[in-house]
Amino acid sequence: MNVAVVGYSGSVEREPVLRIAELCINLGKALATNGHTVFCGGRDGVMELVSRGVREAGGTVVGVLPVHESGNEHLSLRIKTPFDNITRSLVLIESSDVIVSVGGEVGTAVEVLMAYARAKPIILLLGSGGWTDRFSEVLIDDKYLDSRRNVAVLKARTVEETIRIIGDIGRQVK
Amino acid sequence: MNVAVVGYSGSVEREPVLRIAELCINLGKALATNGHTVFCGGRDGVMELVSRGVREAGGTVVGVLPVHESGNEHLSLRIKTPFDNITRSLVLIESSDVIVSVGGEVGTAVEVLMAYARAKPIILLLGSGGWTDRFSEVLIDDKYLDSRRNVAVLKARTVEETIRIIGDIGRQVK
Amino acid sequence: MNVAVVGYSGSVEREPVLRIAELCINLGKALATNGHTVFCGGRDGVMELVSRGVREAGGTVVGVLPVHESGNEHLSLRIKTPFDNITRSLVLIESSDVIVSVGGEVGTAVEVLMAYARAKPIILLLGSGGWTDRFSEVLIDDKYLDSRRNVAVLKARTVEETIRIIGDIGRQVK
Amino acid sequence: MNVAVVGYSGSVEREPVLRIAELCINLGKALATNGHTVFCGGRDGVMELVSRGVREAGGTVVGVLPVHESGNEHLSLRIKTPFDNITRSLVLIESSDVIVSVGGEVGTAVEVLMAYARAKPIILLLGSGGWTDRFSEVLIDDKYLDSRRNVAVLKARTVEETIRIIGDIGRQVK
Repeated sequence: MNVAVVGYSGSVEREPVLRIAELCINLGKALATNGHTVFCGGRDGVMELVSRGVREAGGTVVGVLPVHESGNEHLSLRIKTPFDNITRSLVLIESSDVIVSVGGEVGTAVEVLMAYARAKPIILLLGSGGWTDRFSEVLIDDKYLDSRRNVAVLKARTVEETIRIIGDIGRQVK
Repeated sequence: MNVAVVGYSGSVEREPVLRIAELCINLGKALATNGHTVFCGGRDGVMELVSRGVREAGGTVVGVLPVHESGNEHLSLRIKTPFDNITRSLVLIESSDVIVSVGGEVGTAVEVLMAYARAKPIILLLGSGGWTDRFSEVLIDDKYLDSRRNVAVLKARTVEETIRIIGDIGRQVK
Repeated sequence: MNVAVVGYSGSVEREPVLRIAELCINLGKALATNGHTVFCGGRDGVMELVSRGVREAGGTVVGVLPVHESGNEHLSLRIKTPFDNITRSLVLIESSDVIVSVGGEVGTAVEVLMAYARAKPIILLLGSGGWTDRFSEVLIDDKYLDSRRNVAVLKARTVEETIRIIGDIGRQVK
Repeated sequence: MNVAVVGYSGSVEREPVLRIAELCINLGKALATNGHTVFCGGRDGVMELVSRGVREAGGTVVGVLPVHESGNEHLSLRIKTPFDNITRSLVLIESSDVIVSVGGEVGTAVEVLMAYARAKPIILLLGSGGWTDRFSEVLIDDKYLDSRRNVAVLKARTVEETIRIIGDIGRQVK
């Protein structure tokens, strides 16, 4: 499956990314090991750490970049766009079958809502901070991001649980 | 000023729009009377009612439309785009100086977050339901939509308070 | 009708715009006088001169702007976008019923081809230079921009002929 | 290098694609054999035949798709977008270092002009028909697509010449 990972940008050596660095690298490795193609925004922060994990595990990681960005060093393929951060996220989300959300500021929140608007499965990696945890507090019936109930938003507490949920989604699609 | 009103789509004769119909018409009238140019998504629901109010008060209301939509009957000007609902919202938000949020599902949430990402002033019309009220519950320090603190999100309880806040913003800009 | 005018950008005091300055101002005036709403890219060059003509004749001229541009001083309404020059042209063309091409470099050529792809009527103002004249030389059967024959490309030699053709198109649409 | 191939859409078993089918397959094979990553619009026509050639030679071919399209069967990777044909071409062109044009209607013409606007090298595969040959007739000084002279447009008569020119461009970039 094509799995997008969205989350905090920013330096990997500073908070709020530093605290979840190992989680992100492990997530990248686990996605690659389980045969998924990883999509991300191609920049720094969570994107860079997940890309690093995928590369170290020998997988494929595609970065969908905004204008004037060349992307982190771990990317297998760079999709360049003439767009700003939010506009380019339309391509990132459309290209993915499942979205995993890790921490994140307002850009991440937009990506999660874009995915929900398209009825794409979303997994919130709980405890990673930012909008990932904030969304988990405002879900309608503990599942939905609005009253249209497009698609159930799922929650995972660990990388292993995330991988298992993605596997379940893959089997349902087939 | 150019004021965007974002909110629920859907039939104006059914909930959740019906309950706030008068509020929306009055908001449109008040914006027009106070000399603002109103921008909206040009479709039904809150957009249609606000457009009606603006037209009845003799003002200008611009609809930024997604592909294949011709817009509600009250629009002064139709900006047509080849884009889907979310992509066209990029143009709506970019063209506006202030954003007023009234109820709203996931599309409205994306518009509010796009505005915040651009550091544009946002006014949540409290009690109108949906993401407008949901955002008011998850604000950081009761003001911000993420930890970058781009711009303070403001709250209004009535149309009059909304107009007064927009006036204040206009004076600060000058 | 909503009439887009596309053409050269650049200083209005230098060639190749200077030579066609009066033509552009007169085109703007004539479009306004005949009740059309004029759309343009909102910047300098042909856009600025046409906007000036519209304003002097008391008409409405809408500028669809790329990111970071505030537009020329003659615009009635500014539609701001977060897009580059070419991406924003998608909105300009989609919003217009007829496109008039005056001179123009590669950006103008893209706008004419976008219009043709949407089967929107195009009028080439002959003798204005650039891609306007270049297209007139490569038309298939002196009419079409590709072998799909989406829509006939029309030619005018003067502002008066342009206005007359737009009037004919308006009557056919009704 | 990332090489985009743009050209006719339509059935591969009908003209105008049928006549250049072998050329397209050979182009795909040669690009793959020479280590280039191929980008295309991912659909039928020239895109499908080039994709087939790349796959048969064991290379990588990325399809940048418009909304609601799943792409031809030969693609290594599908980049899905929520955009129409022309808007998605912005991503295709931005992601590529060189553009090869083969035949083509108005959509291809827009892609070539987008590339020129970004000053990306363009190779016209002469004799392939459509806008590829049409452009070769209106070049300024036999090289440029407008008077700004952004980048020289190059011409090739064979697949071998195309590959050689791409190699030359690659060496200049380094």
